[in-house]
Amino acid sequence: MTYLRNAWYAAALSTEVVETPLARQLLDENVVIFRTETGVAGAIEDRCSHRFAQLSMGKVRGETIECGYHGLRYGRDGQCVLNPHGNKAIPNNAHVKGYPVHERYGFIWFWPGEPALADVAKIPAFPFNESPDEFSAVYGYLDVAGNYQLVVDNLLDLSHVEWLHPMFQQEGGVDAHRTEFFVEGHEVVANRWKPNVKKHGLHGHFWTAPSTHYDARSNMRWMPPSNMNFDLGATECGASINEGVKLPNAHLVTPATEMRCHYFWSVARNCRVNDEEAGRKLYEIVQRIFSTEDIPMIEAQQRNMGAVTDIMALRPVSIEPDIPAVRARRILAELIRAEQGETKAAAAE
Amino acid sequence: MTYLRNAWYAAALSTEVVETPLARQLLDENVVIFRTETGVAGAIEDRCSHRFAQLSMGKVRGETIECGYHGLRYGRDGQCVLNPHGNKAIPNNAHVKGYPVHERYGFIWFWPGEPALADVAKIPAFPFNESPDEFSAVYGYLDVAGNYQLVVDNLLDLSHVEWLHPMFQQEGGVDAHRTEFFVEGHEVVANRWKPNVKKHGLHGHFWTAPSTHYDARSNMRWMPPSNMNFDLGATECGASINEGVKLPNAHLVTPATEMRCHYFWSVARNCRVNDEEAGRKLYEIVQRIFSTEDIPMIEAQQRNMGAVTDIMALRPVSIEPDIPAVRARRILAELIRAEQGETKAAAAE
Amino acid sequence: MTYLRNAWYAAALSTEVVETPLARQLLDENVVIFRTETGVAGAIEDRCSHRFAQLSMGKVRGETIECGYHGLRYGRDGQCVLNPHGNKAIPNNAHVKGYPVHERYGFIWFWPGEPALADVAKIPAFPFNESPDEFSAVYGYLDVAGNYQLVVDNLLDLSHVEWLHPMFQQEGGVDAHRTEFFVEGHEVVANRWKPNVKKHGLHGHFWTAPSTHYDARSNMRWMPPSNMNFDLGATECGASINEGVKLPNAHLVTPATEMRCHYFWSVARNCRVNDEEAGRKLYEIVQRIFSTEDIPMIEAQQRNMGAVTDIMALRPVSIEPDIPAVRARRILAELIRAEQGETKAAAAE
Repeated sequence: MTYLRNAWYAAALSTEVVETPLARQLLDENVVIFRTETGVAGAIEDRCSHRFAQLSMGKVRGETIECGYHGLRYGRDGQCVLNPHGNKAIPNNAHVKGYPVHERYGFIWFWPGEPALADVAKIPAFPFNESPDEFSAVYGYLDVAGNYQLVVDNLLDLSHVEWLHPMFQQEGGVDAHRTEFFVEGHEVVANRWKPNVKKHGLHGHFWTAPSTHYDARSNMRWMPPSNMNFDLGATECGASINEGVKLPNAHLVTPATEMRCHYFWSVARNCRVNDEEAGRKLYEIVQRIFSTEDIPMIEAQQRNMGAVTDIMALRPVSIEPDIPAVRARRILAELIRAEQGETKAAAAE
Repeated sequence: MTYLRNAWYAAALSTEVVETPLARQLLDENVVIFRTETGVAGAIEDRCSHRFAQLSMGKVRGETIECGYHGLRYGRDGQCVLNPHGNKAIPNNAHVKGYPVHERYGFIWFWPGEPALADVAKIPAFPFNESPDEFSAVYGYLDVAGNYQLVVDNLLDLSHVEWLHPMFQQEGGVDAHRTEFFVEGHEVVANRWKPNVKKHGLHGHFWTAPSTHYDARSNMRWMPPSNMNFDLGATECGASINEGVKLPNAHLVTPATEMRCHYFWSVARNCRVNDEEAGRKLYEIVQRIFSTEDIPMIEAQQRNMGAVTDIMALRPVSIEPDIPAVRARRILAELIRAEQGETKAAAAE
Repeated sequence: MTYLRNAWYAAALSTEVVETPLARQLLDENVVIFRTETGVAGAIEDRCSHRFAQLSMGKVRGETIECGYHGLRYGRDGQCVLNPHGNKAIPNNAHVKGYPVHERYGFIWFWPGEPALADVAKIPAFPFNESPDEFSAVYGYLDVAGNYQLVVDNLLDLSHVEWLHPMFQQEGGVDAHRTEFFVEGHEVVANRWKPNVKKHGLHGHFWTAPSTHYDARSNMRWMPPSNMNFDLGATECGASINEGVKLPNAHLVTPATEMRCHYFWSVARNCRVNDEEAGRKLYEIVQRIFSTEDIPMIEAQQRNMGAVTDIMALRPVSIEPDIPAVRARRILAELIRAEQGETKAAAAE
């Protein structure tokens, strides 16, 4: 199995790409992500057509990126626009691959498939990251030495919280949850409702009302290929989820290779929105938990799988909380098969 | 060639496995070694049957080990005994491989072959490690990036001491030794008698009598697959070896893979037995010599052999002191061939 | 493609081989380079014929090197001359490969091909490294994780200086150079004359005359397989190149494997020849520029080429300043083909 290519993937946090170009492997390809002098993000092959130097070792010049070895310049479409040598003629084949790119919700998105199909309206929506009146958000990035679908599995089965994350454990453990699972089109929803539980976890961290118990929720929506919208929050018992503490998250997983992936996350909050110290603390908690609790476990899974990247090929034992992740894997596999069929059909025409 | 499987190998020092489970690769298999709350050692496959997490990242719970990802629990036989999710039913295939284990002489032994054949009476005897009235012992562990038989070769040809170990060199060098070699059943004995030599080496370190010369001995017994009993000692000239300084050793080598091995050692002493500082010093000397003198040389051999693990396949030049190690290699190869023949015969029945 | 074997390559700086033997991989072979007690350099296979220990972990004894594991000794021709064990007989096959070696110009040269063809008169001449009345020189060594020809390309196209080396950039950039290219026999000359330019770069560092402008030159001569003589200097405008600041360099590149190489360099100077501090500063500048500017770029090229070692196989875009390097690659390829033809013809006789 390979990747779904006609899809938007997160390529970088907006804050990762400022003055200096960024080298990043995405879906097995080496890409340089840069921001031109007018602030527009671009992503092209990170390999100069001349001597194969990494363009990410060069500099942004106006709307182009300049190779740091011999000075050839490329536009955001990958076309060489300047050869400073000899008669200055630009050789015919002096171009590299360029990718459609769009910046939105605090992330730089890229489209590894057919450029003509890249519709920015299809970028998954994380409106809380662009609602400064109600929310402020923190963002993080992690490099994971494991197949990207293992991170998706982790997020679609949050029962693991009760064993892996001491800070998030709740009274009653998994038996105190009401789980809900459904499929909407190509999306998978896995909700965990926790009515009338003792204050705990991240919402507990922000809960300032006098109540010691609340209704909490950890509701995950997976959108193919590997982007997730996570509604985390708590309300007074019986109140609407439009009230109370809201901590909506984006979780975006992008393959570097079949064996390695990029994990981008954001957590927005509707409380203490202007309190920078609260944001810094929130960042530290989430980044620490992901990097010291989730990722070591995911990387151990991958080590135990050896060179295999599809866990289902090894016939794991399945239990009830696996259902959403198994369904998401099946949907993605079908989308990939369909896309590859279309590609073959197009090639045959 | 592969390994002898119906045999006891050291898996860990007893002191390595206390509260926290220990991950260790043994004969190409990933194993978690743990000690239950009643103190019994167990060794099972280090890969949860559910999502392939490492069980060594989990916790001991009563007589079981609990997976740190989703809480499944396994007994010492590898059978899943608790599924905390959904209807709590334990899936049929929720089990992992379990190994016969026995703790003795300060080591945890495991049997990678047919469990029905695992007879604890066949564990090689190191009685000095269980004779507190006469001896006290120190223990060490080292990880070696080389084939395990290279460590056996090293120990069966102690002529190397005169070049590799400045502290142990003796007046007269190898010419002052009387070597003795014989085979007893499947065991190989390689003795070095050093009559009337000047005080030196480890026995010299513990020798307190006024004599400046003594009869020393370095007598090695190899028991297949790769366990050695080493009688190191010194007596007044002409005295019985039941007298004087006795420093009996265990040297136990266990393959991690064909390219890497575990080296467990113990040195007991019949002098200054209650002197903890003497024990600490003895540990430091032996561990330093093995880790800075023997192991770098063994790892250099393996690097020079590339991916080859059987040194004989590369037709090394043979000299006289190689004879015991070459014989031990031949005996082990015959035992492995015989075992594989039996396995095939059993499979054919 | 493989290497030219009947040729002199630099194996080490003279100063790298003093008392302790040096382990170095050269043209895919593991070699120990040592200096005997009378000061003569030798190079033999770094693998004892007995148990494959690294001889580089041993000691020099008289005119031999002694294995640090069991004491066998080898002469500079690779023949075992001492077996200290048993009846002391030297086994027939107790020998390792020996290489012709010659020390000259501050480097230890070795000849990986047919020993009978090793003519020291063919060692490329760097007379400024042996002219203490006029010059003093500093020497450096760098390990490069890339194919050796990428280093040659770098040196035969010094236009890169204007992008890669801020300290060496000059007014007018590449357009201020007059380039000159010709082939002499099997040698390639690529000169860059810079008439009447503002003081800059390494010659500027040593220029003490009041003139703010001078005639500078950066003239490279490549001699197969991968040794370069670099005439770097500056004179008063219009003066002869026999005057002024002279900074003649040697640049010697030796493959470790197809994917890794050794880069030896020297820079001599005809000014401040007895000023040790000036020499130290010069060493620091050159070593810093090569290790932080050139080598990271060359290693990035190799990473972008993956397992491919011949850049031409990937069809790079060519521009004018590539011409000398492309020609040198073609000459070397022809010499290798010719040598392999001769070897086959000799084998067929």
